[in-house]
Amino acid sequence: MGARPRNVDAWKDARQTRDEQFAAKRSALIRKAARAFSARGFYNTSLDDIAAQLGVTKPALYYYVKSKEDILYACHVISNELGAEAMAYAENLNGSGLDRVVALARRYVELLTGEFGASAVLMEFDALRAENRRAITAARKRFDRRFRTLITGGIDDGSIRKVDPKLTVFFFMGSINWMTRWFRPDGEVEGGEIARRFADYLREAIRSR
Amino acid sequence: MGARPRNVDAWKDARQTRDEQFAAKRSALIRKAARAFSARGFYNTSLDDIAAQLGVTKPALYYYVKSKEDILYACHVISNELGAEAMAYAENLNGSGLDRVVALARRYVELLTGEFGASAVLMEFDALRAENRRAITAARKRFDRRFRTLITGGIDDGSIRKVDPKLTVFFFMGSINWMTRWFRPDGEVEGGEIARRFADYLREAIRSR
Repeated sequence: MGARPRNVDAWKDARQTRDEQFAAKRSALIRKAARAFSARGFYNTSLDDIAAQLGVTKPALYYYVKSKEDILYACHVISNELGAEAMAYAENLNGSGLDRVVALARRYVELLTGEFGASAVLMEFDALRAENRRAITAARKRFDRRFRTLITGGIDDGSIRKVDPKLTVFFFMGSINWMTRWFRPDGEVEGGEIARRFADYLREAIRSR
Repeated sequence: MGARPRNVDAWKDARQTRDEQFAAKRSALIRKAARAFSARGFYNTSLDDIAAQLGVTKPALYYYVKSKEDILYACHVISNELGAEAMAYAENLNGSGLDRVVALARRYVELLTGEFGASAVLMEFDALRAENRRAITAARKRFDRRFRTLITGGIDDGSIRKVDPKLTVFFFMGSINWMTRWFRPDGEVEGGEIARRFADYLREAIRSR
């Protein structure tokens, strides 16, 4: 009675392991490809260039990614997931509205610079297929709405002065998004330091006096 | 004796007027083309599309601009000129270092949103030819250096707290550059209002306590 379930489990385990390995390998490739695109420009770099630079064969690369657009979309998805992770962290934090907003800012910059290296390819938006553009736009809008809600919460509890939540989000998201153009993982300023300082600028810019 | 000089002057005047008319017409076309690119994406829009949208014939358009890259470069040049204008204004202002930095921020946003409509095409950088990319990069570096000098002046005179000038410039330039993605001349928030609020965020973020 025990043999078949064990086999099924083993098969499931093996399959899950293969899926996980595929996902991990794909994820690593995408991060590396994103850096290569960042260095040379998305439109100026072909999948052939990427394969050569990563030291993999083209068939090996195509096993994991279908196209340049596939990589670009994956980068935007990763970036949005990091944003959502920082947002969940901030929303669940005990503290004032201001504390939550500052925590969001700091955590988001830490995650972007850390795991992802803040790829410049994130500035490429028009190159996404229409359906992917819609998905990314929708995710960004959800993020911006939750960000505005955090700010409004801080205005309501008195920790944030009467700023315009929408303009504040635009203001700070600009600073974050622009990071993708100048931040280098091997640069002179470490990601955690940028996170600390940017969060501090935002705190000072909006806190109640 | 008087006839020839008068003729030469008249010819010079006529020529200058033609040059000025050409420059004015080209400038107007570039601003309109920039908006059309912004709406549809630089890579997704052809010069044919631009001609159709502006209601001019293709030969008429080609009389003023040579290529898409020509328009893109002109947009970057205009943006840099507006930055330099705001910088000269701030540098010549009587006041503290903080006053100068805040004046730069406000004036730059006013100019970008006003005369130019903050074209999203400014985010397209890789599409520039190598020599133009170098020219724009050099101009931006000069601007950033002068911006950092203003901040350092404010730290020295005690009006600005001990921030990192480089990170502060990156932080604020991000907010400005990101504007090109969301600001619409016919949108709900007027350019002067954004300038006032962004300059206020920057002031609060960096002023001495």
